[in-house]
Amino acid sequence: MQVAILAFDGITALDAVGPYEVLSAFPGADVRFVAGEPGPKRTERGTLALVADHALNDVPAPDVLLVPGGRGNRVLMEDAPTLEWIRSAHETTRWTTSVCTGSLVLAAAGLLDGVDATTHWVFRDRLAELGARPTPERVVQRGKIVTAAGVSAGIDMALQLVQLEAGDDVAQAIQLGIEYDPQPPFDAGSPEKARPEIVDAVRAATGDALTA
Amino acid sequence: MQVAILAFDGITALDAVGPYEVLSAFPGADVRFVAGEPGPKRTERGTLALVADHALNDVPAPDVLLVPGGRGNRVLMEDAPTLEWIRSAHETTRWTTSVCTGSLVLAAAGLLDGVDATTHWVFRDRLAELGARPTPERVVQRGKIVTAAGVSAGIDMALQLVQLEAGDDVAQAIQLGIEYDPQPPFDAGSPEKARPEIVDAVRAATGDALTA
Repeated sequence: MQVAILAFDGITALDAVGPYEVLSAFPGADVRFVAGEPGPKRTERGTLALVADHALNDVPAPDVLLVPGGRGNRVLMEDAPTLEWIRSAHETTRWTTSVCTGSLVLAAAGLLDGVDATTHWVFRDRLAELGARPTPERVVQRGKIVTAAGVSAGIDMALQLVQLEAGDDVAQAIQLGIEYDPQPPFDAGSPEKARPEIVDAVRAATGDALTA
Repeated sequence: MQVAILAFDGITALDAVGPYEVLSAFPGADVRFVAGEPGPKRTERGTLALVADHALNDVPAPDVLLVPGGRGNRVLMEDAPTLEWIRSAHETTRWTTSVCTGSLVLAAAGLLDGVDATTHWVFRDRLAELGARPTPERVVQRGKIVTAAGVSAGIDMALQLVQLEAGDDVAQAIQLGIEYDPQPPFDAGSPEKARPEIVDAVRAATGDALTA
C-alpha cells in the first residue's frame, strides 16, 4: 500500500508523524513524504525540518493520500500544481485523507463540496466557507474521504484506516506496537470539554498566529 | 525553557515529535534537535528524516533533556561522547527525560541505577538488566527523571511536564491546541489490555526487528 504524505514549509509535524508511525507499520506499506520541491520542510515554528524525499510527480497514484495541517498549507490552497496533483491522485486513491487543517486544502481542491468533514476545531467555520459540512466527530469517514480533527487526531484516523484495510488484529497489533494507551492529564482536549476561558484563549492565540 | 531532543539514525519519529509538538507550544520554549553530527537523521524504516540543527556541544546545558527511542539508539549506549553529554547535561537540567527505549540510553549513561523508570513494554527486562526498576506506569516521575512508556506515551509525558512547569491552565491550553482528545479504536494499547496472541505477535516482531 503506497501512502503519500504531503509536506510543506509551515507544517505541523505531529499531523504528519502520527499517521506516519501507524501507517509505516502496515505490512508492505510504502510511505513517502512528497512536496512540490523535495527537501527539508520546516515546521510552523521553524525548529525542526521533515525531509520530503519525493516530488509530487514521482508519486502520481498513491493508495492513500494524506494532507497534514499547519499554517503553511494555506499557500497550497492557491497552488495550482498541488491542487491538480490532489485532484488527479484522488481519482485512483483508496483513501483520500487529511489531518487538522489539511481538510482546508482538500476543500480548496474541490473534493469536499457538500461533504461531511472535520478539521482543527478553530477552523470549523472556515471549512464551511469552503463548501464542506463541518461534522463534530474526531474522525469523519464518508466514502473514501476520511478527515481527522486537530493534530493528534491523525493517530486515531490512521488506526481506523488500518482497521478498514486489514482488520482488527493488525490494527490492534500496531496500536500495541506504539503503546497507544493514552492517558492525557486532563479531559480537556476538545472545545466541548475544555473550560470556556481556555477555549477562548486558544482560539485567540491561534487566530493571532494565523493573521501574522 | 531550552529543550534538547536527541536525534540519531534509526529514531522512532513519533517518540520525538509527540513531545516536540507539546513542548514547542510552551511559552518561551526553545526546542532544539541535537545530534553527535547535525543533519538529517533517518527513522528506523528510512522513509523519513528529521533534521537535527545542533551539535551536542552547542547545547551543553538544556533545561529539559529528552532521549527518544528507536532501534538506532542502541549504538548510542556505547557512544562515549553521547553518554558524556547526557551525564554532563543532567547535572543542570530541570528535567531529564526519555520516551520508549530512550530510557535504555539514560540507563547506559548511569542515570537510572536503582531508579523507578519505564520503557517500551517489550524492553522492560532489558531496562532491568541495565540497573533500573521497571515500573508499570505510563509516565514515571522520580525526582527530575521522567521516563515514558512506548512511542505515543511521549505526548502524555510532555503534557505532564508542562503542567509541572506552568500549571494546569497552560497544560490544558496546549492539550486543546493539539486537540488531544484521544479516541483509539480499541482498548488494546498496553500488554495488560491487548489479547495475549496480539502481545505475543508484537513481541516476536519487535524482537526480530531488533536482532536484524
